[in-house]
Amino acid sequence: MKMGEKGKTVRLGIIGLGGRGRGQTETLIQMPDVEVVAVCDVYEDRVKLGQELIMKHRGIMPAGETDFRKVIARDDVDAVCVFTSWETHVDICVQAMYAGKRAAMEVGGATSVDECWKLVRAKEETGIECMMLENCCYGKEEMTILNMVNQGVFGTLVHCQGGYQHDLRDEIGNGDINRHYRQRHFLNRNAELYPTHELGPIAQYLKINRGNRMVSLCAMSSKAAGLHEWLTENRADTPLANAQVNQGDIVTTLIKCANGETIVLTHDCTLPRPYSRGGRVQGTKGIWMEDNRSIYIEGRTQADPTHWTHVWEKDTAYMEEYKHPLWKAYEEFGLRGGHGGMDYLVLRGFIESVQKNECPPIDTYDTASWMVITALSEQSAAMGGMPVPIPDFTEGRWLQKRTEFATGEYALN
Amino acid sequence: MKMGEKGKTVRLGIIGLGGRGRGQTETLIQMPDVEVVAVCDVYEDRVKLGQELIMKHRGIMPAGETDFRKVIARDDVDAVCVFTSWETHVDICVQAMYAGKRAAMEVGGATSVDECWKLVRAKEETGIECMMLENCCYGKEEMTILNMVNQGVFGTLVHCQGGYQHDLRDEIGNGDINRHYRQRHFLNRNAELYPTHELGPIAQYLKINRGNRMVSLCAMSSKAAGLHEWLTENRADTPLANAQVNQGDIVTTLIKCANGETIVLTHDCTLPRPYSRGGRVQGTKGIWMEDNRSIYIEGRTQADPTHWTHVWEKDTAYMEEYKHPLWKAYEEFGLRGGHGGMDYLVLRGFIESVQKNECPPIDTYDTASWMVITALSEQSAAMGGMPVPIPDFTEGRWLQKRTEFATGEYALN
Repeated sequence: MKMGEKGKTVRLGIIGLGGRGRGQTETLIQMPDVEVVAVCDVYEDRVKLGQELIMKHRGIMPAGETDFRKVIARDDVDAVCVFTSWETHVDICVQAMYAGKRAAMEVGGATSVDECWKLVRAKEETGIECMMLENCCYGKEEMTILNMVNQGVFGTLVHCQGGYQHDLRDEIGNGDINRHYRQRHFLNRNAELYPTHELGPIAQYLKINRGNRMVSLCAMSSKAAGLHEWLTENRADTPLANAQVNQGDIVTTLIKCANGETIVLTHDCTLPRPYSRGGRVQGTKGIWMEDNRSIYIEGRTQADPTHWTHVWEKDTAYMEEYKHPLWKAYEEFGLRGGHGGMDYLVLRGFIESVQKNECPPIDTYDTASWMVITALSEQSAAMGGMPVPIPDFTEGRWLQKRTEFATGEYALN
Repeated sequence: MKMGEKGKTVRLGIIGLGGRGRGQTETLIQMPDVEVVAVCDVYEDRVKLGQELIMKHRGIMPAGETDFRKVIARDDVDAVCVFTSWETHVDICVQAMYAGKRAAMEVGGATSVDECWKLVRAKEETGIECMMLENCCYGKEEMTILNMVNQGVFGTLVHCQGGYQHDLRDEIGNGDINRHYRQRHFLNRNAELYPTHELGPIAQYLKINRGNRMVSLCAMSSKAAGLHEWLTENRADTPLANAQVNQGDIVTTLIKCANGETIVLTHDCTLPRPYSRGGRVQGTKGIWMEDNRSIYIEGRTQADPTHWTHVWEKDTAYMEEYKHPLWKAYEEFGLRGGHGGMDYLVLRGFIESVQKNECPPIDTYDTASWMVITALSEQSAAMGGMPVPIPDFTEGRWLQKRTEFATGEYALN
């Protein structure tokens, strides 16, 4: 199917209409083969905002609900998109799957290992998949790197790094005012709360669940100084000024893979800093680093005639040369939606998998494997970095490489 | 004492005359108050090279020995500088201390926890200090960052990172030809083999052993692919082509400090890449990153008027504004010696501590605490990242902050 071509109509229920939910809904209703038949949020004002959004763009008023069970029970809903708080993603998706609906969830980390198994069991018992809408898997840079990895530019992959490094002190510190669920996670938990923006792309590079898997991890947390200091200064007249903050400012997670590669994740959301996903990909033939947008490829990068033999070169030429075919097509078609265009691509990946009744490009096993890192890092950090096993949610299917899956336009493997 | 001023003559024995030993000796004999009375190496040709070096510069032929015990037994030796293989540093220094000689050792990691205790016990039983010659503590950038940390520019420190990231495949792979000890470490061990170039400066920032200490660590190793591939291509006709390489290409170590800060170290020596010590310093007011030579300081760095509120600025202006007083004096005096001038400073720190019979700027406890990371990371990595305790070599003296020490010109604290 050519990009932008109209497929079979997909009738969606949208659950969760905070800022992110409304943004993604705006992108979805730009698609001529998508109909939003019901919107839902626990807050009535948000339900109304969602209904008005659909009315404005499509001239049709969708059903509005505050109970998601009414949405998943509807006969006219083919699939649901869940944009609720992190801790409710799995439960809503699982109930949707048992109700016969395809499910997609916004990114987020798991609260427990068990809820990830619950998701996997729902898939196996119903045959219905749940896709994590990890937009960064469709980032322009990430897809270019994936293309380079697949073409062997880095040689044998050995090590990858990434981070969610985003100063969110305002959003978290004012979460009680803005009804943002992040606040309760940062006050009460201490974990790699948000691993998938970097781990999703890395999992693609390393073929996780497709001939490789993550076997164990260790996580260590720094003290919690940044948010507390911010709350003392900015929420002085509230109980938050003296609230206990459990979430360490920097949580570092080390992951070991079956094929011997290591992954380092950095969670860094409560200190002042520029945004960065801190990507680093390293193999026997070279290295790419996001923070200085630089690369070194043995035999290609020019040597320095002076002191050190190896010097960085900017990644600009590589980004053009190895641009992913999907991105070439996308640039011709015209970028749309949020986050530099990647939101549209990941949503489209979901919609087309529903249309074709195929496995989505990010499947239930991927979703469970990526989000479980949060629950496991929480346990490891609490035990001073004790290594903890990462479950094999595929129960051995990763050995088969599963190349039969995800072969469509939006395939990532 | 003014920089460059001639102090009391220090009579040195030099032990270890490989490339590094000869280089450091050349820097030492530029100092008018240093005399080299004996040189030593297990290889006779190197002894001869060392003697010729002194003869050429000073017109005096020093004693030449292949047994270091003959050097430390000499009455005319005040202090020894040990530039031998990593695994022999401690033993030689300890024997020198019991023989009444002040000792300094080139950097390197420990082979065991016990040898670090042996060093500490030698200090306590003899009252004589051993200084690790960690030149990077005197790096221009590192000292500038130390100055910024001490002036509170980063607020409360929370997290530091660093790495020894240096493509040494040639040196290691040809170590048998060039008599370089690194090769046997890389073939047989699997550890953060060389932590101190980054950990030394970080220990200064975090006041390790002076009100803070490193409490525990976890280490994880990637597979060993880079050196093996290099040996297969470059040493095809030798047994090395099929040798088992134990050292993982990337070893990541997480360290937790008593005051809650975390440290991440990266050992990366067998993959193609530009050199970098990968510094990162992060506190409640800002962040510095070496790889993009960038900084963000809240309230000072200009906001981006477009999308993201925080953007990097280059660290150039800060590097000038916060230049360390020692470096200002040094630039006026004139840089000399290897590695951008820092070799001279660290050697001078040692020499002046001998002249004044004072505690050196990097003392025996620092030396033991930094080098033990190698032995501990080896244990942790072998146990899949199991957290291991880091000994308190000061046995509680770190609680006293020890501000009475290291108050001279070359003080780092």
